[in-house]
Amino acid sequence: MTLKSLRRYVPILQWGRQYDRHTLSGDLMAAIIVTIMLIPQSLAYALLAGLPPEAGLYASIAPIVLYAIFGTSRALAVGPVAVISLMTAAALGTIADQGSMGYAVAALTLAGLSGAILLVMGLLKLGFLANFLSHPVIAGFITASGILIAVSQLKHILGIPASGSTLPEMTLSLLQNLPSTNVATLLIGLSATAFLFWVRKGLRPLLGRLGLGPRAADMATKAGPVMAVVGTTALVWALGLEADGVRVVGAIPQGLPPLTLPSFSPDLIRLLLLPAFLISVIGFVESISVAQTLAAKKRQRIDPDQELIGLGAANIAAAFTGGYPVTGGFSRSVVNFDAGAETPAAGAFTAVGLGIAALVLTPLIYFLPTATLAATIIVAVLSLVDFSILPRSWAYAKSDFLAVATTMLLTLGLGVETGVTAGVLVSILLHLHKTSRPHIAEVGLVPGTQHFRNILRHSVLTDPAVLTLRIDESLYFANARYLEDYLSDRVASDCPIRDVVLMCSAVNAIDLSALESLEAINHRLKEMNVRLHLSEVKGPVSDRLKTSHFLEDLTGRVFLSQYDALCHLSPELSGTDPTAI
Amino acid sequence: MTLKSLRRYVPILQWGRQYDRHTLSGDLMAAIIVTIMLIPQSLAYALLAGLPPEAGLYASIAPIVLYAIFGTSRALAVGPVAVISLMTAAALGTIADQGSMGYAVAALTLAGLSGAILLVMGLLKLGFLANFLSHPVIAGFITASGILIAVSQLKHILGIPASGSTLPEMTLSLLQNLPSTNVATLLIGLSATAFLFWVRKGLRPLLGRLGLGPRAADMATKAGPVMAVVGTTALVWALGLEADGVRVVGAIPQGLPPLTLPSFSPDLIRLLLLPAFLISVIGFVESISVAQTLAAKKRQRIDPDQELIGLGAANIAAAFTGGYPVTGGFSRSVVNFDAGAETPAAGAFTAVGLGIAALVLTPLIYFLPTATLAATIIVAVLSLVDFSILPRSWAYAKSDFLAVATTMLLTLGLGVETGVTAGVLVSILLHLHKTSRPHIAEVGLVPGTQHFRNILRHSVLTDPAVLTLRIDESLYFANARYLEDYLSDRVASDCPIRDVVLMCSAVNAIDLSALESLEAINHRLKEMNVRLHLSEVKGPVSDRLKTSHFLEDLTGRVFLSQYDALCHLSPELSGTDPTAI
Repeated sequence: MTLKSLRRYVPILQWGRQYDRHTLSGDLMAAIIVTIMLIPQSLAYALLAGLPPEAGLYASIAPIVLYAIFGTSRALAVGPVAVISLMTAAALGTIADQGSMGYAVAALTLAGLSGAILLVMGLLKLGFLANFLSHPVIAGFITASGILIAVSQLKHILGIPASGSTLPEMTLSLLQNLPSTNVATLLIGLSATAFLFWVRKGLRPLLGRLGLGPRAADMATKAGPVMAVVGTTALVWALGLEADGVRVVGAIPQGLPPLTLPSFSPDLIRLLLLPAFLISVIGFVESISVAQTLAAKKRQRIDPDQELIGLGAANIAAAFTGGYPVTGGFSRSVVNFDAGAETPAAGAFTAVGLGIAALVLTPLIYFLPTATLAATIIVAVLSLVDFSILPRSWAYAKSDFLAVATTMLLTLGLGVETGVTAGVLVSILLHLHKTSRPHIAEVGLVPGTQHFRNILRHSVLTDPAVLTLRIDESLYFANARYLEDYLSDRVASDCPIRDVVLMCSAVNAIDLSALESLEAINHRLKEMNVRLHLSEVKGPVSDRLKTSHFLEDLTGRVFLSQYDALCHLSPELSGTDPTAI
Repeated sequence: MTLKSLRRYVPILQWGRQYDRHTLSGDLMAAIIVTIMLIPQSLAYALLAGLPPEAGLYASIAPIVLYAIFGTSRALAVGPVAVISLMTAAALGTIADQGSMGYAVAALTLAGLSGAILLVMGLLKLGFLANFLSHPVIAGFITASGILIAVSQLKHILGIPASGSTLPEMTLSLLQNLPSTNVATLLIGLSATAFLFWVRKGLRPLLGRLGLGPRAADMATKAGPVMAVVGTTALVWALGLEADGVRVVGAIPQGLPPLTLPSFSPDLIRLLLLPAFLISVIGFVESISVAQTLAAKKRQRIDPDQELIGLGAANIAAAFTGGYPVTGGFSRSVVNFDAGAETPAAGAFTAVGLGIAALVLTPLIYFLPTATLAATIIVAVLSLVDFSILPRSWAYAKSDFLAVATTMLLTLGLGVETGVTAGVLVSILLHLHKTSRPHIAEVGLVPGTQHFRNILRHSVLTDPAVLTLRIDESLYFANARYLEDYLSDRVASDCPIRDVVLMCSAVNAIDLSALESLEAINHRLKEMNVRLHLSEVKGPVSDRLKTSHFLEDLTGRVFLSQYDALCHLSPELSGTDPTAI
C-alpha cells in the first residue's frame, strides 16, 4: 500500500501534518462546549435505548476517537443519537429484558454488527444503497420517530411503568398506569421540560437584551440541559425526594470505559442482522447529510465511501468499550462546528473531557432524576417533528405523498423497522409502476426550428404518412410489452401511416426484454407494410443494439437526429431537398 | 350494465352472433384432433402434479368451457400444462402426502385461489404486474423447469420410488434407489421414449416420402402419444407385466367430472397464497404470449385484462370440478390453431370429447403403464429446454445474463418458487442499480445543425464558459445524490465555467427527492457564481416543477431547446444574434 492510498483510508495522516496552534485553540474551545452539552445528552440517550446511563458516556468516548482517525468530515461529532437509540431499543426489546446482562451484550453485538456492515459497505463502495432511502421516506421516518421517542419518555415524566414499541401499545400502557402517577416526579419532569423550552425560546432574546453577543448567547442556551441537571439533582438531594418515589439515576460505576466483548452467537447475530443493517443505513444517511451540510460551508469535501469506513470503525469501537450503536449526530455536530472546531482533533479532546467526566463526575449524579433526562430528550426530539412534508409532497406528487404517509403511519403503528422498510419498498414499487407505463408523445416539427415537440402541447408540423413517437422512458422489461400494445393499437387504427419513427432521445437503455419487443414490433409493422425507423439513439444504447441482429433486421433506418429523419421521410415538410443530405 | 360493456366482459356474445356452418366445421375438426392429443397429455400432467390421472381429464373439461365464454383468444386451449403441474407439485409437496385426500383438496384450493387472484387482477386491471417477469427470467425459468420435470419422471421410467423437488434432492434420491430398478418397466419406458422421439424426428419425413401432405403428416405425428399409450397398454395386458412389478394407472372412476369443494381453511389459504400468486402470474404470462402470437397471425386483438378474467374463471371452474390449476398451453393451442379452430367453440367441443373419454374410455386404460406417461412428459418438456438464452444474454448485456443465470441455478437448486422470485428480485435490483448511476454526457453543437451530441463521441462545438450536461435518466431518489456529487466535482474543478445547462431531453420525471437535490445544486452553484439553466424540459416534468418554488429560485432560465440556450449563452458559437431570438 502506497503512502497516498494509505492517506486516502486514514485521513488523519492528511490534516494531522498541518496541525498548528490556531487549529488547536479552535478545537479545544469546541471540545469544552461539546463536552458540557454531551454529558446530559449521553446519559439521556442511553436511557432511551434501555441501557444504564454510563453506556451513553462510553459510547461517546472511543467511537469519537476512531472516527477522528478514519472519518473525512472535519466537524462531525459521533456518538449516541436519538433515532438510533430508539431503533436500538426496538431491536433489543424482543430479544432480552431491559437491565439484564443479555440486553447489554446484545447492544454491544448490535454495535459490532452495525460496524462490520458499515465497513463492508465502505470497502465494497456500496454507499449508493443509502440512496434508496428517498427524501420523503427519511422525512416521514424522522418525524414519526420523534413522536415515538417523545411518547416513550412520558413514563419517566409521570413516574410510572409503561412498555411497548409502537404508538398504540405505548399509549395504551401509559393510560393503564396513569392512576399511579408520582406527583413529585411529575412536578420535576414538567418544570424541567418547561425550563428547557424556555431556554430554547426565551433565554437567547433575554441574553441579547442583557448585552451578550449572539454567539455567546447561543452557546449559553446549549448549557440549558446542564443547568436543568444540576438544579433538579440538587433539589432531589436537598429534599430527599428519592424517598417519595422519584426515580434517580443511582450508582454509576466510576472509571474509564471498560473493555467489553460482543457476543458471537450465530443465533443472536441472525436475529440482529436486519436491525443492524437498518441502523447502519439510517445512521449513515443522517451522518452524511450533516457532514455534507457542514463541509459545504467551508468548501471541504466529504468522501461517502470513506465515511462508511469511519462510522464502521466508530461502531466497532463502541462494541468493545461498553457502548451501543452510534452515528454522526446533527445537534452535537452543529454545536461543534459553531464553536469553532477546525479538525477531528476537537472530537478527540471531547473524548478526553467525557473520559474525565466518567472518572470523576459520576458520583455527583447519583440523585439526578430520570424525569430530567426524559425532559431533555423530549425537548430535543420535538425539533425533529415536522409535518410540513405532508402538504409539500401532496402538492408536488401523490406518489411522494404516499411514500411519506406509509412510512409515517407504519412507523407509528408497527414500529421503526417495519416503517422504514415499508417506506423503501413503497418508494421502489411506485417508481417501477410509474416507469412501467411510460409517457409516449406524438411529436411534430416546431416551425422555423429543427426541434420536435408534443403535438398536443405545441403547434407543430406533421405528415400523416409519418408517425413520430417520442418514448419518454428507458425501455426495459417492465414497460416493453406496453410499447408493443401501444404501437399495435396506434398503427392498426390509422391507415395512411407508411413510416413509424421512434425518437429515442429519452431512451437511456434498452434491455434484452425490450429488444425482443422491438423485434416483435418491427416484424408486425412489416406485415402491415409500415417501415420502422429509429432516431436520436444514444451512444451507449446504439453500442448495445449493434451486438444483436436487430439493426440488420430493421425495415427502416437509424437517423442521427429527428430532423434528419423528417428530411428523408417527408422532404416537403422539412423544406429541404432530400438529395442534399 | 349496458349491452356493450357486457360484451366486453363476456366476449362469447360477440363471436357467438357470427357463428355459422363454416366456423362450425373448422371448430369440430380442431376439437377432434385436440381431444386425441389431450387424453394422454392430461393423464400425464396429473401424474406430474402428484394427482390421480383423472384429475388431468377433469381439469381439461370445465375450465376450457369457462375460458370459451370469457376469454378473448380464438384459439387458446386451456388446461393442465407442464410447468404449472410442476409448480403445483412443489406447492403441495410441503403440505400433504401425495395420494392423500388432503393433497387433492389442497390442489382444488390452489386452483380456486389462483382463479380468485387472476379475477381480481383482471378486474383491477393489474395485468401489468406480469411485465415484471422479464424475458431473461422467463427463459431461464422455463428451461430450468423443463430439466426438473424431465428428471422428476425418471423414477417412473426406472420403476423406483424417489422424492425431492430440487435437482440435487431428486438426483440423490434416484441414485439411492437405482439398485431396485424394475427391468420390465425400464424396457417399456425406454421404448416409449425412443418411439416418441422417432415420431417427432423421423415419422414426418417418412410420411412425406410416402406421399402424405405436410399438414396431414403433422397431424399424424401429434397422435404419437396415443399410439404409444395403446401399444404399451396392450403389451402390459397381453404379457401380464403388472405381475412383474410394472406400475399401471389402475382403476379410474368412470364418469363426468365430479362436483368438488375447495377448502376455505384460513391456515391452508395462508400457506398456498404465495404459490397461488406465482402460479397465476406465470400461467398468465405463458398463456398471453401464446394467445398474442396466434392472434397476430390473423390480425385479431387480445385484451390482457379480459384474459385474466377468462383464466380466472377457468381456474375457479377447475376448483369446483376435481381439477387443479390450469392455463393456456403452448402445444395444445398451436395444434388447435393449426387444425383450423376458428372460435372458442372448438374448446367447448374438445370438452365434450374429453367428457366422453372420461365416461367411456377410462376402463380401457387400466393397464396403461405410468412409464409411458412419463415418456410422453419427458419428450414434451425437452423441447422447453433451450440454453441459447445464456450466450445470447451474455453477448447483449451482463445484467440480463445475471438474471438468467440466477433464475436457472436457483430454480434447479432451490425449487421453482425460490427460482422465479429470486429472478424477479434480481432483475429489479439490477435495473435500480443501473438507474442509480446515470450516464451523464457533456454535449456540444454538431456543426451546421441545431443538434447536440456527446463531446466524447462526436466532433462538436463547445464554449468553455458554458457547461452543458445531458442527464440520461429520470431523476429520482436513487440517483439524486449522484447528480449532486457529480456536479459539485465537475464545476469546482473547472474555473472558466459561468453557466451550467442541464439538458433534460432524457429526464422523464423528477421526484421530490430529486427536486431537493436540484435546489441544493442551484444553491451551491450560486455560491460559486455559476448560473444554472434547464433546457428541453418535457411537458409533464415542467408541469410538476411549476407546483414548487424551484423555478422561481432558479438562478438561470428554462429554455425550450438546447439550441435556444446556446443562442442566448454563447451567441458567437451558435452564429446567431441573441437579440433576434
